[in-house]
Amino acid sequence: MLTIDKFYDARKVLNPVLRHTPLIHAPRFSINAEVYIKPENLQITGSFKVRGAYYKIAKLSDEDKKRGVVACSAGNHAQGVALGSQANNIKAKIFVPSTAPISKVEATKRYGAEVVLVNGIYDDAYAAACEEVERTGAVFVHPFDDEDIIAGQGTIGLEMLEDLSSAEAVVIPIGGGGLASGVAMAVKTLNPGCQVFGVQAAGAPAMADSYHAQQILSGKVVKTFADGIAVKKPGTLTYELCRKYLDDIVTVADDEIAAAILTLIEGQKLIAEGAGATGLAAILADKLPIHGKKTICLVSGGNIDVNILSRVINRGLVSSGRKSELNIELLDRPGELTRVSSIVSSLGANVVSVNHARGNINNDINGCFLQIAMETRDFAHLDEIRTALRSAGYVVDEK
Amino acid sequence: MLTIDKFYDARKVLNPVLRHTPLIHAPRFSINAEVYIKPENLQITGSFKVRGAYYKIAKLSDEDKKRGVVACSAGNHAQGVALGSQANNIKAKIFVPSTAPISKVEATKRYGAEVVLVNGIYDDAYAAACEEVERTGAVFVHPFDDEDIIAGQGTIGLEMLEDLSSAEAVVIPIGGGGLASGVAMAVKTLNPGCQVFGVQAAGAPAMADSYHAQQILSGKVVKTFADGIAVKKPGTLTYELCRKYLDDIVTVADDEIAAAILTLIEGQKLIAEGAGATGLAAILADKLPIHGKKTICLVSGGNIDVNILSRVINRGLVSSGRKSELNIELLDRPGELTRVSSIVSSLGANVVSVNHARGNINNDINGCFLQIAMETRDFAHLDEIRTALRSAGYVVDEK
Repeated sequence: MLTIDKFYDARKVLNPVLRHTPLIHAPRFSINAEVYIKPENLQITGSFKVRGAYYKIAKLSDEDKKRGVVACSAGNHAQGVALGSQANNIKAKIFVPSTAPISKVEATKRYGAEVVLVNGIYDDAYAAACEEVERTGAVFVHPFDDEDIIAGQGTIGLEMLEDLSSAEAVVIPIGGGGLASGVAMAVKTLNPGCQVFGVQAAGAPAMADSYHAQQILSGKVVKTFADGIAVKKPGTLTYELCRKYLDDIVTVADDEIAAAILTLIEGQKLIAEGAGATGLAAILADKLPIHGKKTICLVSGGNIDVNILSRVINRGLVSSGRKSELNIELLDRPGELTRVSSIVSSLGANVVSVNHARGNINNDINGCFLQIAMETRDFAHLDEIRTALRSAGYVVDEK
Repeated sequence: MLTIDKFYDARKVLNPVLRHTPLIHAPRFSINAEVYIKPENLQITGSFKVRGAYYKIAKLSDEDKKRGVVACSAGNHAQGVALGSQANNIKAKIFVPSTAPISKVEATKRYGAEVVLVNGIYDDAYAAACEEVERTGAVFVHPFDDEDIIAGQGTIGLEMLEDLSSAEAVVIPIGGGGLASGVAMAVKTLNPGCQVFGVQAAGAPAMADSYHAQQILSGKVVKTFADGIAVKKPGTLTYELCRKYLDDIVTVADDEIAAAILTLIEGQKLIAEGAGATGLAAILADKLPIHGKKTICLVSGGNIDVNILSRVINRGLVSSGRKSELNIELLDRPGELTRVSSIVSSLGANVVSVNHARGNINNDINGCFLQIAMETRDFAHLDEIRTALRSAGYVVDEK
């Protein structure tokens, strides 16, 4: 049976090799709660996953160590297992779906693991990993449904209360539930009065659904850009622990997660991946009963593909009025482009791109369209520009 | 005269209010040196500037405090002065050029300072600030050429050696030289054997030029996206200290700075502004004699406008082959677009945008151009796609 002693043992094993990430006070992240960020994106490998994986591997018997380990992951667990194996000098073979971002595959290789790319999605890679275990007798390192893994992740809970013993609430992202189980058990054991909330992506709500239905439910299609928590079915062990120790589980939409990523960039200069920002997303969207409470929000990881990050930032800029597009109908005669662009620039907007095209069948035969993408200050600024153009006689943003 | 005692006094004043930022070991940032990052982007206000400003304001006489302070800045110094004034309960009036990003202006207001927007550039705002001082007798808080400011920034040097007493080299960004003067004096006083290097943007090299010419030179036009260090002329005091304590000053190009920002995002999950990343840029470009040395690289701040960040990421993606564009000449007949896009997608590239246009005067009258922007893995991946399209008979990327 899993007891809190194992968490302290994990702490002892992990202390010399991993980082004790600090708590960062973020008073402006909520008008209701006093928020502290626990930035596990600053952990070695860029995510908390290395805690559980390292501990699991360190605790293997000598015989098991000789057989080597096998894991299956597209991301953070892979890097954790690779680093844990390298540090403990054992062989690791990691099965990765071929759709995984190249950056994560490269990082896993850098830690010395053998990476096997499997055509298909996570489930195909999982099947290949199981075959390998069957064939070679290597030890399978489960990403979450395992006592050692849970105890390793739970060391985060010990650190949280050590650094802020007066914490009244803790908010944790949930995928398969290993992290949430460990942190919630640690926190509730040491301080039963502290509330612990889990947050899932609305597009992958298996644990939330199971928690509320009081039985393990398998998710339908998983659809979220928070790939680190895109899990179809909770673990048996993690489900029991989440039921027992969590006060509630809520879900957040991908757009809320994207806004939280942008908030972390601007407010704390930290990069979070989608999964890592779900906790903050729930706080920003005011979905948790933490008003007036000292709240620790775990940012679980920062391994986001830069292409996706670039899209997330763009989406955040558009949704906050700082990147805007205007569609302007104009007569196709010399000087019109100059007139329009001088109005736009005189109001302080920075033109990023211009698309000038003939009109479609609904327009005047002499008409054409100007599509301008600009950097603006906010929605009020955009309105100001739109009004100025309309005053100058242009038809703006009407289809 | 400035002595090291003042640095320890500053340390005592700042300790209860500011963050002692950690050192982050970044073994992969150089194959030559052992690099540690000192992340002052994680400092309160998002930059080191608050250290000097806070100390300066805290040390004002009661009479001076009553008169209030005036400063002139488009960025980090403004936030530092605002926070320092708020915490010491005195009035602050900050003159900001109207071209400053709205995000920095808002941050300064949030710390309770009165912000006066001045039409024009930095010099215009500076003139307005001087008038205000003349008129009201308020205390002007200089951004760098001031002993208290220098001592405040120098507390970073104390922290560096406290956390890594075996450091053999320290790398610091330079604008006006307040930070470099303080850190270099602290480090050289405590450990004369440790080398200290300054790094400037090639587009704003006034201190570097002055250092090498052994006299204060005023820069010509300042042109860099690292606005935090875009300074035209070094201070008198800071010039003397940089001459005395720095081992060398080198410069880096804007593209090198952009690459360093991307490296910090991917490798450490940290957001740096242009000025903040210059030190790392010099290390990545192997411009410093630090081979084999334990090197602390200061990341001085993270207040980068998100619009600019988005452009920096894009530039980094393009320059590393992860965002690519192809220009394909094709015959204007049905099915061509389908054929091309199926070749591209079968090779695993993700199409971001397509521009399909009639050819120009140099092409066949039936010809047209297809411009495809894609997310690719690297340059080899792009070559693979280009080759496949050519094998299928298309003319690719030839003007």
